[in-house]
Amino acid sequence: MVSQKLRSAVEDLIHAYVQCIDDDRLEEWPDFFTEDCLYQIVPRENTDQGLPIAVMYCDSRGMLQDRVVAHRKANLFAPHLYRHLVSALRVTDQDKDMVTARSNYAVFRTALDPINYGTTEVYSVGEYRDKIVFVDGVAKFQERIVIVDTSRIQSLLVTPL
Amino acid sequence: MVSQKLRSAVEDLIHAYVQCIDDDRLEEWPDFFTEDCLYQIVPRENTDQGLPIAVMYCDSRGMLQDRVVAHRKANLFAPHLYRHLVSALRVTDQDKDMVTARSNYAVFRTALDPINYGTTEVYSVGEYRDKIVFVDGVAKFQERIVIVDTSRIQSLLVTPL
Amino acid sequence: MVSQKLRSAVEDLIHAYVQCIDDDRLEEWPDFFTEDCLYQIVPRENTDQGLPIAVMYCDSRGMLQDRVVAHRKANLFAPHLYRHLVSALRVTDQDKDMVTARSNYAVFRTALDPINYGTTEVYSVGEYRDKIVFVDGVAKFQERIVIVDTSRIQSLLVTPL
Repeated sequence: MVSQKLRSAVEDLIHAYVQCIDDDRLEEWPDFFTEDCLYQIVPRENTDQGLPIAVMYCDSRGMLQDRVVAHRKANLFAPHLYRHLVSALRVTDQDKDMVTARSNYAVFRTALDPINYGTTEVYSVGEYRDKIVFVDGVAKFQERIVIVDTSRIQSLLVTPL
Repeated sequence: MVSQKLRSAVEDLIHAYVQCIDDDRLEEWPDFFTEDCLYQIVPRENTDQGLPIAVMYCDSRGMLQDRVVAHRKANLFAPHLYRHLVSALRVTDQDKDMVTARSNYAVFRTALDPINYGTTEVYSVGEYRDKIVFVDGVAKFQERIVIVDTSRIQSLLVTPL
Repeated sequence: MVSQKLRSAVEDLIHAYVQCIDDDRLEEWPDFFTEDCLYQIVPRENTDQGLPIAVMYCDSRGMLQDRVVAHRKANLFAPHLYRHLVSALRVTDQDKDMVTARSNYAVFRTALDPINYGTTEVYSVGEYRDKIVFVDGVAKFQERIVIVDTSRIQSLLVTPL
């Protein structure tokens, strides 16, 4: 039986995370993770077959920060907006140190390039599989594995999901 | 006034249901219903006019099990994944034996056939109208009516919503 | 720290609002607002640049009622259904008189005209920015600003978001 307080803390973390990305405040994005975190985006077919290859793989907060710097300074991509919906949050396990949770997501991508300006498409749907810990009372992702159903990615996957 | 505990029980049932389908654990799907249940998928135009015809109609748990067996052994269809989002849950009525609730859903369908592999589309949107009872303390659907806005169904409707 | 009771009241208001629109009970829609309310639909590019122009602007409940009368009696448009999903609700501020909240939404539009009958598309995604007050114990929108990512609107925007 999950306490309402714990459930609310997990919900708040997940919702703050998506608003950070949707607001394009990517510089704050690594702060949702612990120092020695794991963030991966994995196609569902790989997960279902036990294959390890990820589309995006970061195993420290420093790698997440590096990714943001690359996003701002090096990567070339069509400008766009993200909008996340998250649903069906389920706390599947908990002990005194860690909470395990799953949730479904959909990301809608709105183009900002001159040709497709203002049009919205379903960009990616899938599942978050999270391990959440509390660092000085603040909920953080120790691990966030994004399982993507949508393996045919429109254009590039440059912004984190 | 709905207690937080009751609301959480209803949310947990609805979220466990969609994860069961999205995980393709269909063999467990009938267990979310009571023995003498009613599960229907009805186009919204029929509901709005009081017309009774359903696209899918099962009025016992045995019929749901039969449907799953047909799905695994007899039906021919293009392989695909489902991903549900559920929102706007409202408990609209309750007495000591039954809870009545409504919620909105969207189902995204990702193709797994060789041509369209990995592409995602909005497959169906609509509403769940549920009557939920507690059997030995476990929440179950006595009745789940799926009202579909999307009456032009892409390919076939073989997997339950 | 937001109390569970306050959070539930805000959730209930937001979910009742979307079900009112999705049920096409538009005559009840102005009742979700205070007398001297502000309801605006603003493209995100305007918001991000501090530009004030709105696609829809109503600054009293009377203007909302007027909008509904126009919708029923004067406006010409292709018949359609809306279906809202709302996610990532965050109470961002509260004092004793007012709650400030943000949430993400997606609206799916199903066509009812003879050509496209029953097909569903992603019509609009974006964010609700709400100021909510309690009038005689009932939660109402003092202000609801709809920030739309999707600035290329399919056909017309006649039904409120």
